[in-house]
Amino acid sequence: MSAPFIFKRFSSTIPIHSKPTPSKAHLHFPLPSSSFPKGYVLTGIHAGVKKVAGVPDLAVILSTSSQPTSAAACFTRNAFKAAPVIVSNEILKKNGGYARGVVVNSGCANAVTGKQGMEDAWAMVRETDALLPSKKFEHETLVMSTGVIGQNLPISKIVEGIRSQAESSSTRSLASDFSAWERAAKAFMTTDTFPKLRSRTFTIDGVEYKLAGMDKGAGMIHPDMGPAGTEFKKQLHATLLGCILTDAAVSPRSLQSALTYAVDRSFNSISVDGDMSTNDSIYVLANGAASSSIIDEDATPQAYEAFKQELTTFAADLAKLVVRDGEGATKFVTVTVKGAPSYKDAHSIASRISTSALVKTALYGEDANWGRILAATGSVPLSPTNANTPPPVIDTTKVCVTIVPADGTAPLPVLVNGEPENVDEDRAKEIMTQEDFELLVDLGGMGDGEAQYWTCDFSYEYVRINGDYRS
Amino acid sequence: MSAPFIFKRFSSTIPIHSKPTPSKAHLHFPLPSSSFPKGYVLTGIHAGVKKVAGVPDLAVILSTSSQPTSAAACFTRNAFKAAPVIVSNEILKKNGGYARGVVVNSGCANAVTGKQGMEDAWAMVRETDALLPSKKFEHETLVMSTGVIGQNLPISKIVEGIRSQAESSSTRSLASDFSAWERAAKAFMTTDTFPKLRSRTFTIDGVEYKLAGMDKGAGMIHPDMGPAGTEFKKQLHATLLGCILTDAAVSPRSLQSALTYAVDRSFNSISVDGDMSTNDSIYVLANGAASSSIIDEDATPQAYEAFKQELTTFAADLAKLVVRDGEGATKFVTVTVKGAPSYKDAHSIASRISTSALVKTALYGEDANWGRILAATGSVPLSPTNANTPPPVIDTTKVCVTIVPADGTAPLPVLVNGEPENVDEDRAKEIMTQEDFELLVDLGGMGDGEAQYWTCDFSYEYVRINGDYRS
Repeated sequence: MSAPFIFKRFSSTIPIHSKPTPSKAHLHFPLPSSSFPKGYVLTGIHAGVKKVAGVPDLAVILSTSSQPTSAAACFTRNAFKAAPVIVSNEILKKNGGYARGVVVNSGCANAVTGKQGMEDAWAMVRETDALLPSKKFEHETLVMSTGVIGQNLPISKIVEGIRSQAESSSTRSLASDFSAWERAAKAFMTTDTFPKLRSRTFTIDGVEYKLAGMDKGAGMIHPDMGPAGTEFKKQLHATLLGCILTDAAVSPRSLQSALTYAVDRSFNSISVDGDMSTNDSIYVLANGAASSSIIDEDATPQAYEAFKQELTTFAADLAKLVVRDGEGATKFVTVTVKGAPSYKDAHSIASRISTSALVKTALYGEDANWGRILAATGSVPLSPTNANTPPPVIDTTKVCVTIVPADGTAPLPVLVNGEPENVDEDRAKEIMTQEDFELLVDLGGMGDGEAQYWTCDFSYEYVRINGDYRS
Repeated sequence: MSAPFIFKRFSSTIPIHSKPTPSKAHLHFPLPSSSFPKGYVLTGIHAGVKKVAGVPDLAVILSTSSQPTSAAACFTRNAFKAAPVIVSNEILKKNGGYARGVVVNSGCANAVTGKQGMEDAWAMVRETDALLPSKKFEHETLVMSTGVIGQNLPISKIVEGIRSQAESSSTRSLASDFSAWERAAKAFMTTDTFPKLRSRTFTIDGVEYKLAGMDKGAGMIHPDMGPAGTEFKKQLHATLLGCILTDAAVSPRSLQSALTYAVDRSFNSISVDGDMSTNDSIYVLANGAASSSIIDEDATPQAYEAFKQELTTFAADLAKLVVRDGEGATKFVTVTVKGAPSYKDAHSIASRISTSALVKTALYGEDANWGRILAATGSVPLSPTNANTPPPVIDTTKVCVTIVPADGTAPLPVLVNGEPENVDEDRAKEIMTQEDFELLVDLGGMGDGEAQYWTCDFSYEYVRINGDYRS
């Protein structure tokens, strides 16, 4: 039967021109040892979770402060929580928000590992506890794992690795210089292409404080992985892990409030592929080594507000590194939504735009496709302002979409008051061929809700990395 | 600075082996004219919205039944509703669920077109109304548009096209044979690779009824499109349009209930890329040409239930065709979730799995990656059973994931009661190299909530089609 009007798809023999993923090596650089918070020792060693000798796969982080060290955490909301998530949550609750140690392994996520997985996570905690002098609680260590899921940890190797950091051990490498921080950051990595380590100095009430931390994210199956990664053949699970350390003294409850606020505006505002892991965890320790004056929401609201903002900015810097290292990413795009009825609505819309496969492929194609941005914006149900009123409705004749270059040159409006502009395609191309730019969506004064998200593009490389197509 | 442990991404010069998208031509075939519902005339013509001569871009569908023709619709929930959506909704409301005509154009979506767009949609309605004898309402036509957004319709060409179907016109081609139905189905197409037309016969209370209908979906930017599609250079917007016609008599309220139920289990249960258009619309007309006995939820509950199930099955058949024609799709995968607390929860989880970029790239890679399925499952917040209780929590030790082949051979469990199986990789490959298979997720008896979703994979071709990368 003839079907003369059927459109033809192009043949699969047309060669695909995959754009190179830009190098990220410049995003890792030395930091002055003086920029790190006081009262912490760290290291990263090869315990043997990863198969290739010398690759760091175990980080140990200890607070040595004489002040109490408060701790807070944000964990994955996934129903399938890995053993280290369950164990760390239990310890934090039991201690009322105090912990002095963090132990992290990469190469195996200890997720979907049942009873044995729980025992292994507890073993990591106990062994690290043993490195801490004069314990105040039964357990004072939080644990994180990332890597393959559904496999048990090689726990005896990990235990041996932790014990190598005992005071009496000749192989102890716990230290506080840049090299120690870098070793720890490297032990977080799975398919990350660079260790993610940053520090920040700030002053509150005349006292100088430091924030420093490391995180990891980015990788799944990696069919053509180099020699260091040969163990990740199947079902490697991308996980977002982060650990932030400060020498401020912050009350446990306020540390948790500040972290929750910061994580919402940083790690919860990034998207590589929109999938939520079983292991995602962000920890923060505050050890009071710079000053014993306790920062607290109620007792010192101004100091708390200042600390919260510093933590948020710092967490966002760490979070953006994960987007930069997104699988196959060739773009780093800031999505800003303003004029929304609330922060929550702005955040939902920014999230929807940032995770839309159509928007992300258009970013890869460097295509100023406002239609896809608009469709994503309109597909988000807004929240009712109260239970008795219907949710607000976007006035489409007030919506503006602008592409903002990162180099400070003039922004390019593509939709103004709901009307498509006659876009200067050359100018659009000029902006979008850059690695960094911003998509600004203004809902036109529904309210003062504003939120930012950071996302990357969807590339052939993303499909290759995750499709694991064995041709 | 040396960074010996940084993992290397593979170079972009490695050639990408894009798997061919399977041909879909066999999915369009002739249907006996006797299989179509009585009392409808249809046609599809080239009005000139599309630039290439002869390509159908305007469909006209009229009920010729002497009985009242009831009508119902499900529209996009996108905040940015195209003019035809707004106009059709208004007419349906005003008429209390009666309409006898449907007019459809492809090539231009008449979306984000402001006041002129509204006038154009009304003009299409008025002109089609004029083809209907003895009107009972001011307007009796519903309108749909699909194609480029942000551009005005060439309305004079469309008006001319509609007028060519007047009784007095020598070019009138309205008819009721297969060829007429096929012409109409072709006029729905944008980047679809085949016209999507199906029919179904069923019997209720001894009366034989027919359902027939057409739909379209699938396409966005198409950089290397063949000659028929050269007009779609930028911002073509994928839209799901469907029109279902039956010769049963159904009360307007019950027709709407049945359609809402059916659409939830068909068009709202498919995913190509998870994006919601400004134009998505499904219409159903019921003209009573087979029998004047009115099917009604309250008056004839058994007949209504039977009709609802027939409509649901038929709508699902039409919806699946859209997934089969998904951009770059090489797989057709049924995602079944059972044992959930409610249908709603099962549907949310099936949706999450079906739209996960990680799951979809694993499908492309023919990789039995239960970890990604599990992570997607766990990331869905379940609904509280009532306002005073916390939402139920999935018991991870009861969850089973099974890959079910479409050929009736043995299913392959990959996760049983939360424990990963030692998967026979050869068998997994055997199943997943097929175009069709099923992913079955059983939550282990939380309730009897069960839902199905149909999805396709994420391929290089998808990125190419939507990335429009002009290298």
